[in-house]
Amino acid sequence: MLTLQQLKQQVLEANLDLPRHNLVTFTWGNVSVVDRDRGLVVIKPSGVEYEHMGVDDMVVVDLASGQTIEGNKKPSSDTATHLALYRAFTEIGGIVHTHSRHATIWAQAGLDLPAWGTTHADYFYGAIPCTRLMTQDEIAQHYEQETGNVIIETFRQRGISPTDIPAVLVNAHGPFAWGKDAHNAVHNAVVLEEIAYMGIFSRQLTPGITAMQQALLDKHYLRKHGKDAYYGQ
Amino acid sequence: MLTLQQLKQQVLEANLDLPRHNLVTFTWGNVSVVDRDRGLVVIKPSGVEYEHMGVDDMVVVDLASGQTIEGNKKPSSDTATHLALYRAFTEIGGIVHTHSRHATIWAQAGLDLPAWGTTHADYFYGAIPCTRLMTQDEIAQHYEQETGNVIIETFRQRGISPTDIPAVLVNAHGPFAWGKDAHNAVHNAVVLEEIAYMGIFSRQLTPGITAMQQALLDKHYLRKHGKDAYYGQ
Amino acid sequence: MLTLQQLKQQVLEANLDLPRHNLVTFTWGNVSVVDRDRGLVVIKPSGVEYEHMGVDDMVVVDLASGQTIEGNKKPSSDTATHLALYRAFTEIGGIVHTHSRHATIWAQAGLDLPAWGTTHADYFYGAIPCTRLMTQDEIAQHYEQETGNVIIETFRQRGISPTDIPAVLVNAHGPFAWGKDAHNAVHNAVVLEEIAYMGIFSRQLTPGITAMQQALLDKHYLRKHGKDAYYGQ
Amino acid sequence: MLTLQQLKQQVLEANLDLPRHNLVTFTWGNVSVVDRDRGLVVIKPSGVEYEHMGVDDMVVVDLASGQTIEGNKKPSSDTATHLALYRAFTEIGGIVHTHSRHATIWAQAGLDLPAWGTTHADYFYGAIPCTRLMTQDEIAQHYEQETGNVIIETFRQRGISPTDIPAVLVNAHGPFAWGKDAHNAVHNAVVLEEIAYMGIFSRQLTPGITAMQQALLDKHYLRKHGKDAYYGQ
Repeated sequence: MLTLQQLKQQVLEANLDLPRHNLVTFTWGNVSVVDRDRGLVVIKPSGVEYEHMGVDDMVVVDLASGQTIEGNKKPSSDTATHLALYRAFTEIGGIVHTHSRHATIWAQAGLDLPAWGTTHADYFYGAIPCTRLMTQDEIAQHYEQETGNVIIETFRQRGISPTDIPAVLVNAHGPFAWGKDAHNAVHNAVVLEEIAYMGIFSRQLTPGITAMQQALLDKHYLRKHGKDAYYGQ
Repeated sequence: MLTLQQLKQQVLEANLDLPRHNLVTFTWGNVSVVDRDRGLVVIKPSGVEYEHMGVDDMVVVDLASGQTIEGNKKPSSDTATHLALYRAFTEIGGIVHTHSRHATIWAQAGLDLPAWGTTHADYFYGAIPCTRLMTQDEIAQHYEQETGNVIIETFRQRGISPTDIPAVLVNAHGPFAWGKDAHNAVHNAVVLEEIAYMGIFSRQLTPGITAMQQALLDKHYLRKHGKDAYYGQ
Repeated sequence: MLTLQQLKQQVLEANLDLPRHNLVTFTWGNVSVVDRDRGLVVIKPSGVEYEHMGVDDMVVVDLASGQTIEGNKKPSSDTATHLALYRAFTEIGGIVHTHSRHATIWAQAGLDLPAWGTTHADYFYGAIPCTRLMTQDEIAQHYEQETGNVIIETFRQRGISPTDIPAVLVNAHGPFAWGKDAHNAVHNAVVLEEIAYMGIFSRQLTPGITAMQQALLDKHYLRKHGKDAYYGQ
Repeated sequence: MLTLQQLKQQVLEANLDLPRHNLVTFTWGNVSVVDRDRGLVVIKPSGVEYEHMGVDDMVVVDLASGQTIEGNKKPSSDTATHLALYRAFTEIGGIVHTHSRHATIWAQAGLDLPAWGTTHADYFYGAIPCTRLMTQDEIAQHYEQETGNVIIETFRQRGISPTDIPAVLVNAHGPFAWGKDAHNAVHNAVVLEEIAYMGIFSRQLTPGITAMQQALLDKHYLRKHGKDAYYGQ
């Protein structure tokens, strides 16, 4: 079991991976990790520049109450979204939110990102869903928590497993991605950005493009995930 | 109160931020700052390459008359535009002009850039307006000053506050952005470029895309600006 | 004749050229080389990160049987595709597979990439073909080998020479490119990515665009290839 | 008057500027300079990689005959195009040819690049013309020289001055740009690439977009060129 200091270090490094992968501008974007045994979440502070961020700037909050447990800074303004997702999606260990260009373009367009090729299928077992628009009430009251709720609703209503599809597009906003830990969540966010880019122009070339063959989606997803996986060492 | 030397240093650094953020090619682009107490504007010299620019190349001009007060170089050819904006928009402290690729694309297309997502709403409280085309007379006489005037006219006729929308697209030309100081103006120019990029392809994916929910625009703008802001430390 | 160690070094370097040319993300992509005298293929290991890859991680497999001859790691999961191509296309010496953005976009769109300019004609003597979609049976049984087979079928049915057109787009997947050795294969993969990018927007500007003049295609291809070539030193 | 060695150094540096400005891939692209007093042209060798190129690799050819006067390497395969342009356009001092992505896209699309904004107007006094397609005979006989001829024909038939419009798009091929010397030619090639990029998406946003106001084109071109210029120091 990792110490809290080790978790903070992981969260710091995962946050610093965001500018390295060109997923963020300025202080946009945030990564967190959950420690389910301790009931804690470690998350990036709000509005601190990446080049000045240190391990002790990471903020520890209580998973149940959202109260800050440790840290001198305010946690990310999106903390309540992360907490809602950790509570509902009990299999996930890390979450990342960015405004990465092409995933955000799909979110602004209000469209699901369909599976159009094996790059997608290697990581996501079907379309990345786009949420419905949030209502005036949801925005006015507990906005960040309601952002989490609309994501959860999207997965539940459509019967999507957050393990099979570790990302979502929040309508008129941008992407959240997750994974078994902070590093894996960032990995998925990078892939999402890549397929979001390719999807824009695949659709431009072939406007009526349909989703890839189910058999090919199965093959690529399952050769990398689950008990019969055979990719990698 | 900052010394004139400190202001020059700020203006130099803000100008050097332009190539760092990939907003300019060659000597295109310029940043200025106003000192309203002294009635002075400090601005980049005309046509000097960024890699050879030093603090003493910055030019000090009189806010009222436009006369050069200090400096061995000619001020930016766009100086008269900056001065017109400082005189009309009394809340602003710094201005930046670039031909950044995607903002310029919207300017060349002669279109406003609508608010289609929270990235936009975090910085701009509504659409970024595009000016009308300038007339033959405006171009022939005092062109640079008239460029400022057509910007001012755009904001006044549409009832837009330059604090709420700290940028404009000059038709068939390119963007100007501003802020409370030079650094903040550059910050807004970077965000403008980012949302201009995303807007092109958001509209490509969903041609009839409408502006985001007003409640969401309010929420994001006001959580970062004004008396109820809660973003950052 | 090169030693096996020299071949491994070539394959390592060619693999490291992929991130250098921005053709891959993470561990995606793989390069191999064939030694026809020894009946061996040297290929990248599966799922190893480029920054941690060394010469001894390269895997040597038997061209005929696909059995690993040397190396402590599992070979690339796409090895069977490489082997099928080496067996069928006896003139080629190196193969590269990537998910490079723009070539993959054409593959996802399920379209051939036509020859629309001399950049294309300098390297490819006609359109880069896109395979048909693979069937459920082909995907279920020996998927990677069948990927090779559908490529071979595409070239044979259309009467295309793999020397004249050293690349293919696998439908809903991505590109394979090849050449006389690993280095040359990567070179062709870079050019393919370049012309794939240009093709997207050439077609956007002129939707009904037709293939370039045959005489110009002949001229550019033949001034760089074959007995009458006069390009280079 | 510069020595031949100084001219070679200029040509080398201008060639090395091409990869620095992301205008070329591999060995594509070439820059030359003319010395009209000596009747000589200095040009890049054919097919030599930029990282291995030295000042003594530059080739000196006779302007009138095209014969190599000095140098151990073959001159660029496009030498005859450069010579034809120097002979016909007597005001120009340097020429650059690239396959830069977006200018090549316009060339492949077979379209003129209209003046849609001041970025264009600052350097080019009107649309950048695209040549007609070359005929089978022109391609078969003296192809490179005929490439020059079709450029010259384009300027003469349309009454365009090569000083006012220092670039052209060769249909189904790519751009040539020129200027008073090698450095200035590269400068114009960079601007061409920039406006070619912006033009693609300006037209996407506003499909029926018309050329900018003539008065604005005049103003911007003439504030930087000719006897009444006032831009720069």
